[in-house]
Amino acid sequence: MTSPTALRKAVETYWAAAEARDWETFAGTLADDVVYELPQSRERIRGKERYVQFNKEYPGDWHAQVLRIVAEGDEAVSWILMREGLRESYAVNLFTADASGRIAAITDFWPEPYEPPFGRDHLTERY
Amino acid sequence: MTSPTALRKAVETYWAAAEARDWETFAGTLADDVVYELPQSRERIRGKERYVQFNKEYPGDWHAQVLRIVAEGDEAVSWILMREGLRESYAVNLFTADASGRIAAITDFWPEPYEPPFGRDHLTERY
Repeated sequence: MTSPTALRKAVETYWAAAEARDWETFAGTLADDVVYELPQSRERIRGKERYVQFNKEYPGDWHAQVLRIVAEGDEAVSWILMREGLRESYAVNLFTADASGRIAAITDFWPEPYEPPFGRDHLTERY
Repeated sequence: MTSPTALRKAVETYWAAAEARDWETFAGTLADDVVYELPQSRERIRGKERYVQFNKEYPGDWHAQVLRIVAEGDEAVSWILMREGLRESYAVNLFTADASGRIAAITDFWPEPYEPPFGRDHLTERY
């Protein structure tokens, strides 16, 4: 089991490097055979080279702010606020480390805003 | 800081009790002043009584399967597969414990399926 600190540090570096468009440092956090999955679209990217390219090519002037990282052993989760111009969205990212502390698996969720369902506003408030 | 084991245990109990519709046990995992937030709809529920009622009243014959729990100190995250009939969806839930190990804050994300954007199928596969 990787120490919590190793994977937490890798995830912190992953986001700082992505924000800085420092793709060499970003790549350094990843295992060569990293697997990236998006369960919402059922897309998968295999391998560090393709995954770095995916991030390099990702369109838009986006900025990622880390809201929370929770790390335990070889698992970690980050909660991100992503800004692009006036648009803000959240992401939640699940990470698994390999034995050397590099990121071997990423499962990304990009939840979209929705309107509250009817019938529960006797319990809820809006913010 | 709560021990990782205390909050992990609370989150395990939370899901097992929800699945069993054992609302007394479920309530026992929660702080009296628990705050539940849904950032996608910007809904908030304040207090154990209302939050238990919200879960009791939640429509449908849903079943929650815990895929992963990551717990560190007074923070934890669960990744859930929710089934209702043939419909499957994921949820990611962020928990914060109070000093006694009860769940004081929950931030829930319910990401919906979407079609892959154009222009990246040179890097991705579908699964």
